[in-house]
Formats: sequence, structure tokens, C-alpha cells
Amino acid sequence: MLRLQGEMIRGGTSKCWIFDHHDVVATGVDADTLLLAAYNAADPRQIDGVGGASSTTSKAAIVRTSTKPGIDVEYAFAQVGIGDERVEWASNCGNCATAVALYAVHNGLVPITSDSTTVRMLNVNTRARLTGTIPTPGRMAFDEGTAAVPGTAALGVPVLLGFEDPAGSTTGRTLPTGHAVDTLTGPVGGIEVSLVDAGAPAALFEAKAFGLQGTESLAEFAAAVPTLTTLRRQAALAMGLAKENDPVSHAVPKVGVVARPAAYRTTDGTPVGPDDYDLAVRMVSMHAPHPAIGLTSAVALATAAATPGTLAHRVARQTADGTLRLGTPAGVITARAVPAAQGASPTVLLHRAARRIARAELLVPVLEGRPA
Amino acid sequence: MLRLQGEMIRGGTSKCWIFDHHDVVATGVDADTLLLAAYNAADPRQIDGVGGASSTTSKAAIVRTSTKPGIDVEYAFAQVGIGDERVEWASNCGNCATAVALYAVHNGLVPITSDSTTVRMLNVNTRARLTGTIPTPGRMAFDEGTAAVPGTAALGVPVLLGFEDPAGSTTGRTLPTGHAVDTLTGPVGGIEVSLVDAGAPAALFEAKAFGLQGTESLAEFAAAVPTLTTLRRQAALAMGLAKENDPVSHAVPKVGVVARPAAYRTTDGTPVGPDDYDLAVRMVSMHAPHPAIGLTSAVALATAAATPGTLAHRVARQTADGTLRLGTPAGVITARAVPAAQGASPTVLLHRAARRIARAELLVPVLEGRPA
Repeated sequence: MLRLQGEMIRGGTSKCWIFDHHDVVATGVDADTLLLAAYNAADPRQIDGVGGASSTTSKAAIVRTSTKPGIDVEYAFAQVGIGDERVEWASNCGNCATAVALYAVHNGLVPITSDSTTVRMLNVNTRARLTGTIPTPGRMAFDEGTAAVPGTAALGVPVLLGFEDPAGSTTGRTLPTGHAVDTLTGPVGGIEVSLVDAGAPAALFEAKAFGLQGTESLAEFAAAVPTLTTLRRQAALAMGLAKENDPVSHAVPKVGVVARPAAYRTTDGTPVGPDDYDLAVRMVSMHAPHPAIGLTSAVALATAAATPGTLAHRVARQTADGTLRLGTPAGVITARAVPAAQGASPTVLLHRAARRIARAELLVPVLEGRPA
Repeated sequence: MLRLQGEMIRGGTSKCWIFDHHDVVATGVDADTLLLAAYNAADPRQIDGVGGASSTTSKAAIVRTSTKPGIDVEYAFAQVGIGDERVEWASNCGNCATAVALYAVHNGLVPITSDSTTVRMLNVNTRARLTGTIPTPGRMAFDEGTAAVPGTAALGVPVLLGFEDPAGSTTGRTLPTGHAVDTLTGPVGGIEVSLVDAGAPAALFEAKAFGLQGTESLAEFAAAVPTLTTLRRQAALAMGLAKENDPVSHAVPKVGVVARPAAYRTTDGTPVGPDDYDLAVRMVSMHAPHPAIGLTSAVALATAAATPGTLAHRVARQTADGTLRLGTPAGVITARAVPAAQGASPTVLLHRAARRIARAELLVPVLEGRPA
């Protein structure tokens, strides 16, 4: 039985285990084997492991201090299988980045030199650069805070999460096709789409093209999901993310619909008025409506809404200071695009929260280099 | 933020957190408040806590060494709410008892004096007495083992779990009504039932009364569940577990159907022959088919099958040595009734397994004596 130190940290609406790279190396087995065993990935209930048996609670990040200029911490994000002995290393997770920042501050991966500490992070999966800024009044790291995010009533330490130079992060271009609007083949003819790459590649449609307002409940939006997942494949091909004979990705690009603000109720029943936000959005997560919005998708939305000619720009309320309030099923999430130096695309900032749940020594059943 | 030491241990097919009574007391807040906050019980996803957001992964036991004669360890079992700020203290859990035994051996709550160590436990919720016997070769406690239980492929340390003098544990009588068979009112007239109290109170019907073989898949058995839950209320009244005006319990008594052995396939597709087991059983868990069988229900079955005149005795293959192999949807679980001294009812033994998953310090968000 291997031993492995880890911290269970809530980042936003995800639960992530954070491990130190050196601890992982010290076990002598590869990270895939270690995580599959620690989470009991083989079991759909993950009953013999630390995983929570849902996509938002079967996540890990492996962190290390960085020697790269301008980077404090590098992390590899892992989506650990549920009833599936595979670890997916292809994506980034903004919620886990939030957790990584809190971990870094508490575990001395960055020095605390003032009342606020910024952790400069590199996501090694996608090469995305992020910052996490955490209050450290009196040069102290705190476990408690009163920050909240839509999707949970729990409170945590405020983390201002920044996506640095997010435009073209996957394809090299904000608009991979060179157009602000393209046309894909919908179920009843051509359908307009904006194909955007910032934070993550995203294919954004107007809600009205599906007969929707963009303010639907999760159950109402579910009816559009099969068509959107079909369009995802076309979008992947158009953006150069996949070739004809590649297997179909159920995760890339992100797909969803946007609309002008209108009154709606969040999933927990809270009323949201048309003046409470700037852009209505309903995103798809794999094959189901996303309960809120992934943070990398929020970055794509913020970038799209600031790019003239896109469908998001067409329907979003324009603000003077780069703030964009996204009306999601869980509530309003505010993204802010701020100008960056040296020709980089605007940094997108999101107000998030994180909380350390537990510090643990995991007993990991690895036998002969494989999950037991 | 309170700090609380705990161990996450798999016991059989449940994941239980085990806490030391003194650590709980030292926090200065009551156990309900502590567990509700630690598990984030308020959230249906338990995203800000250590709970796994399912009934089998939202369990805790609080243990202490005992000064009572013949008892090593006392434990209180807690079923922590999921999207429901309540802790249920009314029942026992055999899987968590298995975890408690492993915890006791590893944490010095019992001395290890030979190659096998028996932990004598008192469940303070129900006053049930149990034993957990664990191999300790060379007077050492081990983390690894090769024991398995139906319902998970994971391996663990073998734990021989004994329910001591289980008959009449709730009502004082093995047959609370004084009859081996009673008649309740079914959807199409009278329906025979055996009302048994051992390990837990149970209402056992013949599968054929529902047009079933007793070897159905979970999906097939689900059709009978609404009728069985209606009959549960009648059984509760007949057994004196509830009065007419009491709220309806969805947990007490246990209800299920029994039948003669016949060939079937387990949920994971493994074929089971009619000679591989002695009694077919399909139990209900709250409002759904139980994926296997609760251990206290297994005790009730073993006791019923050994009691002449009951429906279980009528259909079970009788064995000479008190062994009863139960054919459950997850596979075959063997219970063995062995004679006890001093007029006590036979001890029921079950072969189980447990594994320590993690040792942790929990950070519990309790503010002003309430979950944050």
C-alpha cells in the first residue's frame, strides 16, 4: 500500500484533490496508475477510493514550483475516470486552478509578501497561464472566507482568477476560421455559429436558432442538447480541432447558446432580472446541460462578446469597463476583460472562492505497479 | 474553522468516516453540527465537504473505548443527510461496524495479543453487540488484504463480522407478533408475511406473491417496490414499531422477498447456479431495490431461515451447520448462525472486508456553533 499526501480542496463548484509532484514521483509509480488506484476509478461508485463518483468530484491536480520566468507554480490537471480506468489529461479546469492557488499560498509554494498574494500558474496540459490572487492580510494565509460562487451556498476564501492572454490558446487565433460568424448545417438548414478560441475553443449559437430564449431551465434546455452535440462535431472540424477520421470528442469544443438578457429563475428558484446581467448563456457539458458554466467557457464568452461581429457581441449588453455578467442556470457569473501589456489579449478575471476541506495521507492500493 | 482528525475507511460496500469520540468532544460543538458541516449535508452534491453525496458514502461512526464488561469499543453510527441538514442516529450499519473494527485494531483501541484480534463492539444507537475479527499475524495490523465482498471488485483486509444475540434486538422477540406467518392486506387481497426481528426488524414475503422468482435484476424487481413500501407501513404497525399517527418510516422495517434458489445473473453479469446458494432474496432500500443486501437484513434472513414456520424457512435450502448462502443481485453473501452460550440467540457471522482509504485532518466550517 503506497502512501501519498494530498489536500481535498473545493474550488468554486468542484472538489479537487491536490498533490505535490515530488510526492507523486516518490511513490515510484506513474501518475495514471496512482490516481486510478487512489480514486478507485474502475468502480462507477468509486467506493474504494477518494473520488466522489461524479465529474465535478473526480478531479486532481499535481503541482510543483516552476523555474520558468513569470511562473510560480505548474500544475497538471487530471479528470479521473468513473467506472472507467482512464485518466484524461487533455483539458484545463478553472475551478481546480482556484484550488491550486489556495494550496500554493498555504503550502509555501509562493512567498507571502503583502496583504494580497498572486500565484502565477501554468497549466501544463494546455499551456494556459493563469493567476490566482488571494487576500493575505498581515501576510497570513487564511482557511476561512466569506466569498461565494453561483452553484453552491458554501463560503470560502476569495480567489480572483485570471486567464492570461487567453485568445487563441488552442489554435493560435481568436477566430480559428478567420470569420466572426460561420454557417454549419443544422437540422433544418444552415445555422449561424461563432467559433471562438479563448480559454477553450467554443462554438456559440444564438438561442433563437433553436427556438429558445437562452434563459431556459436545465430541463427545458436539455431538448436542444442532442442537436448541439451533433453540431459540436462540425465545429471541431471547421476549427481544425479534429480531422474527418478522428474519433468524436464529447468535450471539445465547448458548445452553447447565447441571447439577450431577460428575466428568469435560477435552478434554486432565485429570480434574475434583465438588468442583473449582460448576456444569457446555456452551455452543454458532455451530453447534458451544464448546471452553470465552465470557467474556460466563461473566458470564451467574455472574449467573444468583446469581439465585434460575433453572435455573442451581437446580443450582449456592451459595458464600458470590460465587465460581462453572464446569466447562467446557477446564477450570474461576472467576467472582466482587462487590457494586457505587450500585445497579449486581454486578461479575463473571474471572482471565485475556494476552501480547504481536508489534509490527508492517502493509502493507495497499487500492487506490482498496477491498481490492485 | 475547526480541525478534526478522521479516517476514511471502506467497510464492505460502504465508505465511512471514523472519528474518535474525544476528538469530537474537543471541538466544543455537538456531533450533529460537526457532521452536517464536515459533510456539507445542506448541499445535494456535498461539494464543500467530505461526504460522497450518496447514501453509502455519507456515513460516519464516532468511536470510543468502552468500560462496559465484555465490550472493547462503543460506536455511534450516523447517516448524514444529502441535501438535508439532518443526521439520522436511529440505525446500525454492519458495513461501518466492519470499518470500526479495522480502525480499532490500527489505532490501539484493542490490544493485539495473537495472530487474530477480535474487537467486541457495542452499537450505541441500537444497543446491538457485534464482533469484528481481523487477522493480525505476528501481532501486526495490516493495511492490505485479499478479501472481497459482492458489490465491489476492490480487495481489503478480511473482517469476520459477528452479530451477537441478534434475535429480538429491537422488539425483544424474534417473532414480534408471536406468529411465524402473518397476513397483511396486499393490492389484491391478503398476503402472507413473516415478521422477524433479528439484527433489524424485517418483513419478508414470498417472491411468488408478487409474481416474481426472487432472482430478478434490479430493474425487474423495481416494479414490486411501490407495493412493498406500502406493505412496510402495515408491517411496522403489526410489529409495534410504529403507531397509527406516527410519521411513516421509509427505513423500518426492512422489506423484501425470498424464494427457492434458481439460476440467475448478478448485476455485473456473473452467472449464479441454483446450487451456488440456499435462498434467493431481493430487498428494498428506502424506495429502491437494494443493490445487494444490508448486513442487518442478512442477519434477519439467517434467523428467519432457521426459524421453523417462517416463509424464509419454507423456501430456504436447509444446511446442517447453520450456513446460509444468500443469493443477492450483487452475488452470494454467506451468513452462518453459530450457537451462543447462556441462552442467547445464535451469533450470525458474515465474511466481510475493509480497507483504510485515507487518514485526514478535516477543516470543518462551523461558525457560532452552526454549520457555516
